[in-house]
Amino acid sequence: MADRMGPLLIIGGHEDREGDKVILSTLARLLDGGKLVLATVASHQPDGYFDAYEKAFAALGVTDMVELYVHERSDGSDPGTLEKLEGAAGVFFTGGDQLRISSQIGDTPVEHRIHEIHRAGGLIAGTSAGAAVMSETMLVKGPSAESYRIGELHMAPGLGLIRDVIIDQHFAERGRYGRLLGAVAHNPRLLGVGIDEDTALLVQGDEGRVIGAGAVYVVDGEEASHSNIAEARAERPLSIFDVRMHVLSCGDRFHFTRRRPEAGPDDPA
Amino acid sequence: MADRMGPLLIIGGHEDREGDKVILSTLARLLDGGKLVLATVASHQPDGYFDAYEKAFAALGVTDMVELYVHERSDGSDPGTLEKLEGAAGVFFTGGDQLRISSQIGDTPVEHRIHEIHRAGGLIAGTSAGAAVMSETMLVKGPSAESYRIGELHMAPGLGLIRDVIIDQHFAERGRYGRLLGAVAHNPRLLGVGIDEDTALLVQGDEGRVIGAGAVYVVDGEEASHSNIAEARAERPLSIFDVRMHVLSCGDRFHFTRRRPEAGPDDPA
Repeated sequence: MADRMGPLLIIGGHEDREGDKVILSTLARLLDGGKLVLATVASHQPDGYFDAYEKAFAALGVTDMVELYVHERSDGSDPGTLEKLEGAAGVFFTGGDQLRISSQIGDTPVEHRIHEIHRAGGLIAGTSAGAAVMSETMLVKGPSAESYRIGELHMAPGLGLIRDVIIDQHFAERGRYGRLLGAVAHNPRLLGVGIDEDTALLVQGDEGRVIGAGAVYVVDGEEASHSNIAEARAERPLSIFDVRMHVLSCGDRFHFTRRRPEAGPDDPA
Repeated sequence: MADRMGPLLIIGGHEDREGDKVILSTLARLLDGGKLVLATVASHQPDGYFDAYEKAFAALGVTDMVELYVHERSDGSDPGTLEKLEGAAGVFFTGGDQLRISSQIGDTPVEHRIHEIHRAGGLIAGTSAGAAVMSETMLVKGPSAESYRIGELHMAPGLGLIRDVIIDQHFAERGRYGRLLGAVAHNPRLLGVGIDEDTALLVQGDEGRVIGAGAVYVVDGEEASHSNIAEARAERPLSIFDVRMHVLSCGDRFHFTRRRPEAGPDDPA
């Protein structure tokens, strides 16, 4: 089964929609002429999302495109909603609130169908909230632009499209190192992956490759020698020692099972 | 000589001046009743700095306090300016532009006198720009809240009060991980030290101890296995693999020669 698993395109938010569209072009190429389902479920007010993406994708040759939205959780088992997923080559989760995705479609027939599409080789893409939700345990809320204080982070079960990884987005732009380190400290089994805006990690099989303008940060706490997360008072900042960090840019790869990065060419095509 | 070297109090900016004043209290304690020289040299418009600190320090029992300012470089050898340093137990560099400190007093009699005070056991403290300037090679300018792109960083010779270390300040608050990683990639001989606001590293001998509300980040590139900094095109983001990172909070210590952190008590006094 795993070898037929489709690719994941995990985007850090604000991907370019008007210039080179490096990330959306990759998404279009992976669809290979197939149907795209734009899932705007993360949004409380999805008006306008579909039109903006439709225009960007039309210029890239993606013309078979439908919007998937749920107004409430019961829509997740509605036959009309499910029908939209028929024949999909890919599903793209747009931004908003990751908790809206997990709470409204988590464990519904719509979510099950999306997993089936992925297992059958279909592409699952997500930007911003749509990226965060791919984790098994996802980051929901936590402070940006400050160090992590014990107990300040909210996590929740995500869609689990990628295992043993916790994803954060808008990473450098919103100064989210502190909260990703905090998340990893909770259980270093999870590899922390922080993705900058207009940057994506394309995961195929066990390997991820960076595309786009920014960087992808991998925070590996496996060899951490000390952390105060379980002992410290709630208002105390996190201490954690001996975290391994990799900064990857366009063309670099990461092997998840081995937890090892691999340098790409200086001038990736 | 080294064992008589005075302490360094390296503050990440915005230290509390009205509440508990944890950092300024430590500064006052280290002065032990002695004279404090407030060096406002980093500022283009120093008006008001002295008054604000005078008030905060008066409440902490520091009453013997003078302001040191230079309007232009020639003031750095002016006898009247030098006289202000007579009998000083400590010098405190306030914030502004670190390049103003290094360019206006670097290699002047005033700077030489400050080094003498330090070597004779006097305290040197600095906040924000006054922290950055303590490095041998200091960070001057570089992007905050984004990943580091090759060639985007400006460094300059600092006062060299601490060796083999490069300091950044307002660290988590301004999302400066990217630029500190970039600085360390230039030459991993330098240990990167990022200090949050209202947080300080008190360096005595070979050891630093964290005080204050935030965290201190130590970025150690000694075992880095790959970096693209010398090969890559200027607009390309930095790649660097296998950086070791430590996050230290109040009470934690760092041993510079061994490059090792040490956990403090959970509830430091």
